[in-house]
Amino acid sequence: MTALQDELVEVPRGLKGVVVTDTALGTVRGRQGFYHYRQYSAVELAERRSLEDVWHLQLEGRLPDAHERARFAAEVAAARHLPQDLWDALPLVAASGDPMTGLRTAVSWLGAARGMRPVYDLTPAERRADAVALAAPVPTILAALHRLAAGLDPVPPRDDLGHAANYLWMITGQQPEPAAARAVEQYLVLTVDHGFNASTFTARVIASTGADVAACVVGALGALSGPLHGGAPSRALDTLDAIGSADRIDPWVRAAVESGDRIMGFGHPIYRTEDPRSRMLKGVARGLATGRPEAERLVAFAEEVEHGVLSVLAELKPGRELHTNVEFYAGVVMELCGLPRAMFTPTFAVARVIGWSANVLEQALDSKIIRPSSRYVGPPPPQPVPSA
Amino acid sequence: MTALQDELVEVPRGLKGVVVTDTALGTVRGRQGFYHYRQYSAVELAERRSLEDVWHLQLEGRLPDAHERARFAAEVAAARHLPQDLWDALPLVAASGDPMTGLRTAVSWLGAARGMRPVYDLTPAERRADAVALAAPVPTILAALHRLAAGLDPVPPRDDLGHAANYLWMITGQQPEPAAARAVEQYLVLTVDHGFNASTFTARVIASTGADVAACVVGALGALSGPLHGGAPSRALDTLDAIGSADRIDPWVRAAVESGDRIMGFGHPIYRTEDPRSRMLKGVARGLATGRPEAERLVAFAEEVEHGVLSVLAELKPGRELHTNVEFYAGVVMELCGLPRAMFTPTFAVARVIGWSANVLEQALDSKIIRPSSRYVGPPPPQPVPSA
Repeated sequence: MTALQDELVEVPRGLKGVVVTDTALGTVRGRQGFYHYRQYSAVELAERRSLEDVWHLQLEGRLPDAHERARFAAEVAAARHLPQDLWDALPLVAASGDPMTGLRTAVSWLGAARGMRPVYDLTPAERRADAVALAAPVPTILAALHRLAAGLDPVPPRDDLGHAANYLWMITGQQPEPAAARAVEQYLVLTVDHGFNASTFTARVIASTGADVAACVVGALGALSGPLHGGAPSRALDTLDAIGSADRIDPWVRAAVESGDRIMGFGHPIYRTEDPRSRMLKGVARGLATGRPEAERLVAFAEEVEHGVLSVLAELKPGRELHTNVEFYAGVVMELCGLPRAMFTPTFAVARVIGWSANVLEQALDSKIIRPSSRYVGPPPPQPVPSA
Repeated sequence: MTALQDELVEVPRGLKGVVVTDTALGTVRGRQGFYHYRQYSAVELAERRSLEDVWHLQLEGRLPDAHERARFAAEVAAARHLPQDLWDALPLVAASGDPMTGLRTAVSWLGAARGMRPVYDLTPAERRADAVALAAPVPTILAALHRLAAGLDPVPPRDDLGHAANYLWMITGQQPEPAAARAVEQYLVLTVDHGFNASTFTARVIASTGADVAACVVGALGALSGPLHGGAPSRALDTLDAIGSADRIDPWVRAAVESGDRIMGFGHPIYRTEDPRSRMLKGVARGLATGRPEAERLVAFAEEVEHGVLSVLAELKPGRELHTNVEFYAGVVMELCGLPRAMFTPTFAVARVIGWSANVLEQALDSKIIRPSSRYVGPPPPQPVPSA
């Protein structure tokens, strides 16, 4: 390497463990099986608090008092309404693709329609307003896209319902059971944020250029739509269907392991323990199913599959720690709450957009653009350009 | 740090110099003032080759022969046409925002309308087809958004024109001067790719999740829209307007430096020399202006401002190497070619989308998701969650 060559820093593949920046929003301790939002266990927040409380925590740095709670709930409820031109366009958007691509298009549109400007040019208060104005309408867009694709009229948001209950209301047009609304809310709290996963990191890279909040969220939605990131909760449930019955678990898993297929709903790049989200969602699923025989059968079967997969893997791949990830029981919970499978990954986005927007606000305080390097491995330049 | 804590890797801020991955697409040697596409100098390619040839080089790994050139030009020309539902939606999109946000929305829409699936699920040939199908229509969308916003009817693409000439045709509705078309083409070749800048890196992070090509490009467009990345070519020209006349250069620059303002069109995070793109574009601007008195005055004034800024900086900030970047003379060239200023950053996107899509194809060959870490700096968890 000569002095004319730029200096390069070698790091693990996929930037694993690489510290991009400081954060006060929380982090994941993969070896402990623990993650937190600010100073609180995320699981404990999901047990004890509403989604709006956690949203306020991530945006403002503290849980709300009673006055702040009422004010924030009103702000969120008002922001769930869409501008008329977006309502007008949604039937066309719904016809052009699935809910995730439609959400990507509609969020991009919404940012423009709301006149969102680069975070670089905004005050912190203006950025924060944009963060709520973009995250709050995500359930409205998704529910409308779902209903339009099914040939149904969209159901407008209700200001008297919490964020999770209103989401179910807009999808089904029916008052949700309190237990279902709370289960979805707990799922949403659990998935608001989770370290520098690919979508959150995408949002922060875009924010580091000073772009508007919608630009950051649209990029993050794209990352979440990738099969290696957010694409699996419905596939985990499809796996349960494919296995079909308890006696088929063992041969199915052996065949999958032997052919090298990935088993959806198992394994996580960070956790070396049980995924704490999976553990809690298993309990949520059990609670939801109690007293409903068909639901009880589904949860019992899911637990049998979990046990079967872990047993076969312990035998065929000893020493390899593998556990259910968030997607396995998330799929079961969403199924029990009546969410259609096409809406599983989009529902993940309802929660994660809150985390993304909080990350964008934090990244906007840092004026350093994120611009890494690569190692060129092709034929050495410059070679003369031949004539055309 | 205990064994329960995850291991972290410390690197320079903004991931500067951090090697994310290998690439055969090219790189930037900032200390040498040199950058290349595969084994060729990018500047030499801009001098000697068409945009379509360079596009083929980046997608296929080699410059085309005569047969490949004709086939690729036909593929690109056919892909410039938009599906009818997007034509129908463009007036609504144009009304909702500026060309960059409109492009972001329309590209998201186009990916859905073309049924683009996750790259993770596609063959290399299918991915490559999506890459062209998404990059080629970008000028069509931009020109249509520009004309609709101006109350004009969109002009459909012409298959008999090259990519750059057709772009000018669709914007103005007039046959472009060959010199203007070639100048725009040279600008586009120069800006196809440039290392792991924030937008290219964004596209690769999203691609690492296995998401579809549109998801990657939409995220990259968001990053490009950030003022710290692609937002400056028109601002550089606005600076020329703000200075106004040669006698005001010195006091204007002194005032800007003393108040700590950033001077648009100067400085680059990688180059420690003159930006090779700036050097070439200065020559292109001179060639375009020759024999046109008003154009000659603009180019001469731009050179005076360049000289003035460098002189004042050498006096006030000795030892600090600062040069014009690509945006300074790019703005002058685009102005001389009749492109409206609102289209300067969008025109950057016409070129860079080619680079992004080539980067997506390369990233899709790597199955490792890009997922870095952060350092938590808030109050230590877990603290008990208070009751609501």
